[in-house]
Amino acid sequence: MGEASLTKTFEFSSSHRYYRPEWSEEENRRVFGKCAYPNGHGHNYLLEVTVTGAVDPVTGMVVNLVDVKEAVEGVLAEFDHRHLNLDTPYFRDRIPTSENFAITLWGLIQKALPQGSRLSRLALHEDEDLYVEYRGGA
Amino acid sequence: MGEASLTKTFEFSSSHRYYRPEWSEEENRRVFGKCAYPNGHGHNYLLEVTVTGAVDPVTGMVVNLVDVKEAVEGVLAEFDHRHLNLDTPYFRDRIPTSENFAITLWGLIQKALPQGSRLSRLALHEDEDLYVEYRGGA
Amino acid sequence: MGEASLTKTFEFSSSHRYYRPEWSEEENRRVFGKCAYPNGHGHNYLLEVTVTGAVDPVTGMVVNLVDVKEAVEGVLAEFDHRHLNLDTPYFRDRIPTSENFAITLWGLIQKALPQGSRLSRLALHEDEDLYVEYRGGA
Amino acid sequence: MGEASLTKTFEFSSSHRYYRPEWSEEENRRVFGKCAYPNGHGHNYLLEVTVTGAVDPVTGMVVNLVDVKEAVEGVLAEFDHRHLNLDTPYFRDRIPTSENFAITLWGLIQKALPQGSRLSRLALHEDEDLYVEYRGGA
Amino acid sequence: MGEASLTKTFEFSSSHRYYRPEWSEEENRRVFGKCAYPNGHGHNYLLEVTVTGAVDPVTGMVVNLVDVKEAVEGVLAEFDHRHLNLDTPYFRDRIPTSENFAITLWGLIQKALPQGSRLSRLALHEDEDLYVEYRGGA
Amino acid sequence: MGEASLTKTFEFSSSHRYYRPEWSEEENRRVFGKCAYPNGHGHNYLLEVTVTGAVDPVTGMVVNLVDVKEAVEGVLAEFDHRHLNLDTPYFRDRIPTSENFAITLWGLIQKALPQGSRLSRLALHEDEDLYVEYRGGA
Repeated sequence: MGEASLTKTFEFSSSHRYYRPEWSEEENRRVFGKCAYPNGHGHNYLLEVTVTGAVDPVTGMVVNLVDVKEAVEGVLAEFDHRHLNLDTPYFRDRIPTSENFAITLWGLIQKALPQGSRLSRLALHEDEDLYVEYRGGA
Repeated sequence: MGEASLTKTFEFSSSHRYYRPEWSEEENRRVFGKCAYPNGHGHNYLLEVTVTGAVDPVTGMVVNLVDVKEAVEGVLAEFDHRHLNLDTPYFRDRIPTSENFAITLWGLIQKALPQGSRLSRLALHEDEDLYVEYRGGA
Repeated sequence: MGEASLTKTFEFSSSHRYYRPEWSEEENRRVFGKCAYPNGHGHNYLLEVTVTGAVDPVTGMVVNLVDVKEAVEGVLAEFDHRHLNLDTPYFRDRIPTSENFAITLWGLIQKALPQGSRLSRLALHEDEDLYVEYRGGA
Repeated sequence: MGEASLTKTFEFSSSHRYYRPEWSEEENRRVFGKCAYPNGHGHNYLLEVTVTGAVDPVTGMVVNLVDVKEAVEGVLAEFDHRHLNLDTPYFRDRIPTSENFAITLWGLIQKALPQGSRLSRLALHEDEDLYVEYRGGA
Repeated sequence: MGEASLTKTFEFSSSHRYYRPEWSEEENRRVFGKCAYPNGHGHNYLLEVTVTGAVDPVTGMVVNLVDVKEAVEGVLAEFDHRHLNLDTPYFRDRIPTSENFAITLWGLIQKALPQGSRLSRLALHEDEDLYVEYRGGA
Repeated sequence: MGEASLTKTFEFSSSHRYYRPEWSEEENRRVFGKCAYPNGHGHNYLLEVTVTGAVDPVTGMVVNLVDVKEAVEGVLAEFDHRHLNLDTPYFRDRIPTSENFAITLWGLIQKALPQGSRLSRLALHEDEDLYVEYRGGA
């Protein structure tokens, strides 16, 4: 019957800053623009999490949504209402762009999902007009 | 010149219930939560229907939207303002989850579309934060 | 400094049916259309709740959002994933239109909100294109 | 012919923190929840700005949109990609709640709009489900 | 019990041009910007129509939605897929701004609505970030 | 680490007409419906532009958003507030359907993007319920 994909969207709020200390102020402003301002700014992130698999003939589900919520909300608790650079260990020497943030979330969510659930796609929306999609590494 | 895909979204409203009669009440509540309540609940479903193909050099279209609307609205008339378990024949012994509902709609829409139109994707949104995607069986 | 209004939106899902037993089938179908189908249909309702008042100079708030959420979610628990006609006592002899549903919710939410919080508006969205607004009785 | 109202929406991004230094940590967490975290969090704010007036019979406009954009974008430049508590002078001793932020924006935008344009309403959306409305002081 | 308001949203598509023939090209471009281009441009307009009144105790409705749809769709048929300046008689010597368009629609819809239905508000959205509201003349 | 995709959405407004001069009026109306009206109609188009590639370990970006905006806005300036048939050279003998428009935009945007940025997908939304997706030719 083929596979189906279930996508659940989560909302949370974080602040961040784009800055490379080994660069001059001018270079930081040229590359990162207003994202280099010292005290950071923030977003309401929307995260789409997609799990793909066969549909269980008994429950009619690819995965129980309750398990997806428990797994993903557990991961997001570390980021919600936090400053990505200052409050989490993931962006000490990586810029917390949406690209890098999506890759970090991929690793954490993959581990948190129930055994047998295949994470196939993350889409991280920074605002209404911009999102990054990640489908895992090679 | 490659292929293009046209996606049209349709809205309709149905009610449903998740319940397996061979299970105890406790088991139904544990697996299906509030979806197991006896009198059902409902949704405004949004259904994205994608048709893929070459662009006709005369009309500039993959498929005439009028034909897509006629085909899909014909299919949805059986479900709109209906109770999926009680008013349709498709969920007598299958749970009307979004996964199973999308698979049922796939078969019906594929048959209803005009000859030569290739259905490539359905996305069924149960609410603003949850959708299922189906691209057909193997 | 004048007053400000805080509006929080809540989502829930219910099913319902429009039907007057003293009318013929034909009359019910003529007035209520597909909403008269016997097994009901459903919606993802969005409810906007507005509280108006002076801004507290210490907290900077019209009302603490935590209190609004506790009050409104307590009220909505009675309706979420339920059939309005069959599972609640409010629509035994009133049609569960959005108008009547909004009036019912007004009375319940007004009582549930913390002392001193003035409910000034409810907007109940039945789907993306239709909503009812209620600001209380004379 | 009566008056008409023109509403233009603007998007920007800021971070902030809710905290009263004269309160204990416990009190701050009890009242402000996760908003009291030390390094702040952020939002993509949406600001609706409404100007009301007679429709000019020559231009057909209440106000020229170009003038509204110039005025409001000038005001928002001070807040975009900034930390409201640390980077602006308005929240040194006031909590940067949406209520207080809307009142601050009201004063600044009213001054920046072209002579003769009557600001009648601000709606400041902190996220998809929460907004504050302000219509000026008494 | 007070009054309730029912708001239904309609979508249609038109093109238009802002131009005063008695002005120079420069003056037209200065005041109307890109809207003065000779061949016009277009929008997907969203029109919110609000009817206010007492709730009928038998039907539970302020007004039957079927009647609102019939009235408003009848009015919009004259504008949908049309060029406002060239295809309709309303903008021969008035600029088809959203303000003027809303006032024109007000008169037509008020006449088309069923006897006893009080039109209380129109909101005409030109795009996602801009709308005009009209509540009738003095 | 695999590749990531960045998608930025742009809004613009154009008018157009579907018409084949070698066909009769009846044939044009039968195939193109209201889109064949002589003076055209218009849309607020939303264009999603996706660039795919490896994430730069220094900047954390697939591509600098500033470069994407400069490239795409440069392309869209030729279409914004314009009539596709009359004001641009691309639809002299091709119908400006969303399919053909997306293919035209693909060629122009691919050339305009900075060296090394791989355009992987365009999605052109004609209104809220209809979009065309194009991923390039074979």
